[in-house]
Amino acid sequence: MRDENELKIPRDRTDDYAPGAIAARQSFAREYAGSSLDHVGTYSLDPQALPGNVENFIGVAQVPIGLAGPLLVNGEHAHGDFLVPMATTEGTLVASYSRGMKLCRAAGGITTTVVDDKMQRAPVFTFPSAREARDFAGWLDEHFDEIAAAAQETTSSGRLIEIQRFFASKMLYTRFNYTTGDAAGQNMTGKATFAACAWIKQNYPGELHFLLEGQFATDKKTSVVNMLHTRGKRVVAEITLPAALVEEQMHVSTDKLFSARLKGQLGAFMSVTNNNGNHSANGITAIFIATGQDVANVAESSALYGFSELLPNGDFYASVTLPSLIVATYGGGTGLATQRECLELLGCYGTGGVHKLAEIIAATVLAGELSLGSAVVAEEWVQAHDDLGRNRP
Amino acid sequence: MRDENELKIPRDRTDDYAPGAIAARQSFAREYAGSSLDHVGTYSLDPQALPGNVENFIGVAQVPIGLAGPLLVNGEHAHGDFLVPMATTEGTLVASYSRGMKLCRAAGGITTTVVDDKMQRAPVFTFPSAREARDFAGWLDEHFDEIAAAAQETTSSGRLIEIQRFFASKMLYTRFNYTTGDAAGQNMTGKATFAACAWIKQNYPGELHFLLEGQFATDKKTSVVNMLHTRGKRVVAEITLPAALVEEQMHVSTDKLFSARLKGQLGAFMSVTNNNGNHSANGITAIFIATGQDVANVAESSALYGFSELLPNGDFYASVTLPSLIVATYGGGTGLATQRECLELLGCYGTGGVHKLAEIIAATVLAGELSLGSAVVAEEWVQAHDDLGRNRP
Amino acid sequence: MRDENELKIPRDRTDDYAPGAIAARQSFAREYAGSSLDHVGTYSLDPQALPGNVENFIGVAQVPIGLAGPLLVNGEHAHGDFLVPMATTEGTLVASYSRGMKLCRAAGGITTTVVDDKMQRAPVFTFPSAREARDFAGWLDEHFDEIAAAAQETTSSGRLIEIQRFFASKMLYTRFNYTTGDAAGQNMTGKATFAACAWIKQNYPGELHFLLEGQFATDKKTSVVNMLHTRGKRVVAEITLPAALVEEQMHVSTDKLFSARLKGQLGAFMSVTNNNGNHSANGITAIFIATGQDVANVAESSALYGFSELLPNGDFYASVTLPSLIVATYGGGTGLATQRECLELLGCYGTGGVHKLAEIIAATVLAGELSLGSAVVAEEWVQAHDDLGRNRP
Amino acid sequence: MRDENELKIPRDRTDDYAPGAIAARQSFAREYAGSSLDHVGTYSLDPQALPGNVENFIGVAQVPIGLAGPLLVNGEHAHGDFLVPMATTEGTLVASYSRGMKLCRAAGGITTTVVDDKMQRAPVFTFPSAREARDFAGWLDEHFDEIAAAAQETTSSGRLIEIQRFFASKMLYTRFNYTTGDAAGQNMTGKATFAACAWIKQNYPGELHFLLEGQFATDKKTSVVNMLHTRGKRVVAEITLPAALVEEQMHVSTDKLFSARLKGQLGAFMSVTNNNGNHSANGITAIFIATGQDVANVAESSALYGFSELLPNGDFYASVTLPSLIVATYGGGTGLATQRECLELLGCYGTGGVHKLAEIIAATVLAGELSLGSAVVAEEWVQAHDDLGRNRP
Repeated sequence: MRDENELKIPRDRTDDYAPGAIAARQSFAREYAGSSLDHVGTYSLDPQALPGNVENFIGVAQVPIGLAGPLLVNGEHAHGDFLVPMATTEGTLVASYSRGMKLCRAAGGITTTVVDDKMQRAPVFTFPSAREARDFAGWLDEHFDEIAAAAQETTSSGRLIEIQRFFASKMLYTRFNYTTGDAAGQNMTGKATFAACAWIKQNYPGELHFLLEGQFATDKKTSVVNMLHTRGKRVVAEITLPAALVEEQMHVSTDKLFSARLKGQLGAFMSVTNNNGNHSANGITAIFIATGQDVANVAESSALYGFSELLPNGDFYASVTLPSLIVATYGGGTGLATQRECLELLGCYGTGGVHKLAEIIAATVLAGELSLGSAVVAEEWVQAHDDLGRNRP
Repeated sequence: MRDENELKIPRDRTDDYAPGAIAARQSFAREYAGSSLDHVGTYSLDPQALPGNVENFIGVAQVPIGLAGPLLVNGEHAHGDFLVPMATTEGTLVASYSRGMKLCRAAGGITTTVVDDKMQRAPVFTFPSAREARDFAGWLDEHFDEIAAAAQETTSSGRLIEIQRFFASKMLYTRFNYTTGDAAGQNMTGKATFAACAWIKQNYPGELHFLLEGQFATDKKTSVVNMLHTRGKRVVAEITLPAALVEEQMHVSTDKLFSARLKGQLGAFMSVTNNNGNHSANGITAIFIATGQDVANVAESSALYGFSELLPNGDFYASVTLPSLIVATYGGGTGLATQRECLELLGCYGTGGVHKLAEIIAATVLAGELSLGSAVVAEEWVQAHDDLGRNRP
Repeated sequence: MRDENELKIPRDRTDDYAPGAIAARQSFAREYAGSSLDHVGTYSLDPQALPGNVENFIGVAQVPIGLAGPLLVNGEHAHGDFLVPMATTEGTLVASYSRGMKLCRAAGGITTTVVDDKMQRAPVFTFPSAREARDFAGWLDEHFDEIAAAAQETTSSGRLIEIQRFFASKMLYTRFNYTTGDAAGQNMTGKATFAACAWIKQNYPGELHFLLEGQFATDKKTSVVNMLHTRGKRVVAEITLPAALVEEQMHVSTDKLFSARLKGQLGAFMSVTNNNGNHSANGITAIFIATGQDVANVAESSALYGFSELLPNGDFYASVTLPSLIVATYGGGTGLATQRECLELLGCYGTGGVHKLAEIIAATVLAGELSLGSAVVAEEWVQAHDDLGRNRP
Repeated sequence: MRDENELKIPRDRTDDYAPGAIAARQSFAREYAGSSLDHVGTYSLDPQALPGNVENFIGVAQVPIGLAGPLLVNGEHAHGDFLVPMATTEGTLVASYSRGMKLCRAAGGITTTVVDDKMQRAPVFTFPSAREARDFAGWLDEHFDEIAAAAQETTSSGRLIEIQRFFASKMLYTRFNYTTGDAAGQNMTGKATFAACAWIKQNYPGELHFLLEGQFATDKKTSVVNMLHTRGKRVVAEITLPAALVEEQMHVSTDKLFSARLKGQLGAFMSVTNNNGNHSANGITAIFIATGQDVANVAESSALYGFSELLPNGDFYASVTLPSLIVATYGGGTGLATQRECLELLGCYGTGGVHKLAEIIAATVLAGELSLGSAVVAEEWVQAHDDLGRNRP
């Protein structure tokens, strides 16, 4: 174990984002670990824009962006064709999403609907016994307006709309639900809920303790409670695909597609997953990186409820519901150099763009589901009737 | 809806990664959507290295990297102090992880252990009834060596080690488990399992149908089955923190920390999350982006089992178990320009580095858990004894 | 396959509960299967009381009842000592619960609180697309009073208090929550919700289809949604046990008990169970059979959230929360011969007794948890220090 | 709080099942609580048979039994028609199951298959750190035969077949899986595993602590791990129903039935239940009470995976998989007076009957699923086209 000072990462208290401070850290890292960091040190963004986004800045990751599309969306906020920037290092991802987008475009485009929108912080309150916990819940009802006002003092764009309650033992677990405008809102709701809890602690006549987070908002974690009750945007993308189109473009019949889906549904139920679809995380992550979203939110944003039907005429209804999609077009990393450009590519940058972005992402996810889902089903056919026959002596 | 051809993304069949092809797409996007893409178009990586990583390349996302550390790891593969590159746009993330790393370093460092390592593809086999499904399971046992040999023909570094079975209805859901060397192995196991299934279909005397994926590998999705049975690396990071050290650096007593944890554990059980910790996704995502991992795997890699004890002397034992951490030091995006440099910074690039990387990530996660966990607990104290007193008239 | 008529179970259309009808069935069964049914045919209950409880009556199961107690309850509805009738065929069950009750009595008794009370039916509504589903949710809000009135026409004791909503795809899954007095209320809420849905279908201006149950009430099934949101009674039982008392009566130290519990909590989180306790189903089932509850409800009623703390002085706080305890003191099997006697033994028969019964059951469960939990921990000690030493040469 | 002695339940150390001892307790209860217990005190069973089944015996619960059937089973152990005794106080239950049985008989009977059979106890082992836990797992492999031999010394009918492992933190959670003959086997596996752990503790060269249960067998609790890996019998019941038959007997088209099922499947996935069917607990509980099973096991035995398909010709394939059905035809309450008679009615009493009983129960469950499932779907039709028309002015 080396001496701590020898290993201290250089910081410049005056301006830690100045060229000298950055160079000092690069030299330090280079010397310590023998990595050149030449590419990391090559970037066009302005480091002076980075306070609030990163500490100890040394350069950038260059993540390749591919263009998928055109994606035809029939949304309430997103209308028309979009070229979707996807930042990824996984080969075939962009091609596969594009394939699905082409299919959906030929079928008339994807209908999208944002059905819910809220962000939360989830304090837990502790009491001497369950009785006081129960009584406190009544007190919360009576003082909702004052609590909301206390929260409101900390934010102009967030608004407390509901306090959900979950009793257990001598605790009351809550979810403070907010609307948050075009921001993702995790910080905003944290501050607002802290203020609300402070007001509660000062004004509640009885004894209570609180923790700002009781694991009922499950930030950066997927959970049933978030999937049931929405975290961020709850958005649905739907399409009905003609049987002949699927056969032609995906080389699979819709009844085979549906039969495979049934087995997958049972598999998803048995394996107890947060996602009974195929690979929503691929599309969501690639757009998140490109557009400056908080990529760690992929943990919960990739949760998905898929639902499909085989219609009497053989057409295939497919839908995805993203119950906890956390997106922003304002704040966080959305204003950084390449990230803003990618939001602009989608026409989503800034105020008023967040529902449009949510719809585009949901449509992208649906396109990707159909592409991969078809490929998995088509494979058996290939294997059974063709490849093996050719390849085996 | 515009004409399809008007919207067709330009591709160059000769060399789609040549400057002209890239420029054509940039112009197309610029014209269509009015975004300059100036920053996106600025990069030092060589596009000729990108086939296999991205299609329709138009440039890069520049994601800022901060340096966290030093992180002291007492692993079996990672020994000593590390400077951890974290690519993020979330302010305070790097600072918070560094704060936790400092605490852990002062306590003697973090012990890490890779306890399991496997990757899977999960075909489902369908039969006329449950009886044939049951009988097939016996046949699988008898022919395991031949099935493994068929899989082996497709890969030099992967090896089939086990076929798990889960009966339901007339189906047998399976998990083909492989070791995969320094690669993450999803593609490798996909190909190998397809070959294995082809062999099975050719040789099984009865009627069967298979789908290559029955939702029991839950690739890019978190699931109980993967958390129970490992996907990628299962790695544990542990530390025992002296009570006085926690009090001094984190401004919180270990008994308050533990009491808060108990309530959080119940919250996690009730909300039914894949992660009874705080924010593993933050650290994992930031390292994944920096080091060229498949970032979509954050969906499952961020799953976490936390376990802590308050020792009789007041010291605090803390551990995290990452049951489905998918990492690679070879293949995928690991060889790209900035990504390779970041792996080199950790001394993990290339063959033999993958367990070392897994240990560093687990240690980073533990440091981050302790930092945020302490902050949440310390807040009430601040609120109760200080801020409110000052801020309220 | 025999001819159907030959196998037709005899029924008497005039009075199927008359001695002749019963005897005819007994003869039929005796002849067909060669079982004497002598004991089954021995009972003191009056079959004329059975319409509404069972069809094709042939006799009774005689399930032995043991008496556990005294159980000291400090409830809001149950005060003082109770002798608890437990119908079971599992040896040691009554003895083990009695052991726990003795411990809890010595510690001053168990505090119980009913924190919530509701019963539901959960229709799912289907629309042309997600947009109409979303709009319908708003319409539900606007017409809540009329919908509640339609439900109210079918019941005097039930009252619709809330309609919860869960969007997915083009559907709206709902939970119609009711209070139901002293009845369990499943039938009552079924009828009321059917009437409500009929009113909705007649009055909603758009196209909709509904199913009376969308698997969101999960009747006779345990589910996260019921554990989070209560089905039946949500009741908490709590106690603080002095360390010395536990040591004396249970032969185990409270810190060992707590340490074991921590490991069990992680086990419960990993195995993904509906119950992080030990064996609530034992006590609940035994009381359910004895008191004429719908025993199939054990499936959900046995769900349990346990929470314990080791206090600084070594005392042990223990609690159980039963989130979906379905009980009645009126209707169903509560008025049958032995069942009524057992309810009277608890002073719970009839109107106004249901919360008292819920409290007694919760207290019984807590006593049983402490008894078995201690036994599991004490065993290792026995094994390590005693038995083996004696038994091995 | 009364004096403890005043409330002490009378026990007779010489013979606690003698008439006098029983009468003393009845008097005591009668006096204390004012309940006559006349019916409770009426029974034909011989109390001298009760040691090992109940303590503090005071009489019996008389639970009415109805006869359902005939049930036509095409099993490997159960062949032909059965009359099924169902002990219940829930009206319509027996009638509804009979309705389903009639439908299935008309369709040729239900095919049943026991696909797995094992019982477990799940000790958790604790070590200084994760590394020793991992090493211990290797040691378990090397010493499996000796461990199995130690377990074997305690039982003649049980056999240890596998030790599953689940790493977390510094612990190894295990599942010791056994075959248990015709007994349910919970006690048998408890004793055997205790002996095995004792042998391990004596012979393992390193430091370890164990708890006999780490919440990975989840006895009397439902869990994902038990549903995935079987507890008791894993049994499948299947049938294909002609479309015309369903229409005729159930008054619903198979496509409506299937469409409803799809929505129910998504509801089950969202509500996170252990049972994507309708009401398996009803049938299982009623048979369990009648046949002397440990009724508390309904908690896990009622878990169910349903899977259905709409065939191209409109016929309906339906199946249920009971993954954790715990049954016995030997030991426990199976030999008591009425219970034995009911097992004899099914031809299942005693050695060799347990798989037959499992098949009959699974077939009963499937019949009940089809009956209730059809009724739910038929209701909307009734409501829309008939009742409302008539009932509303």
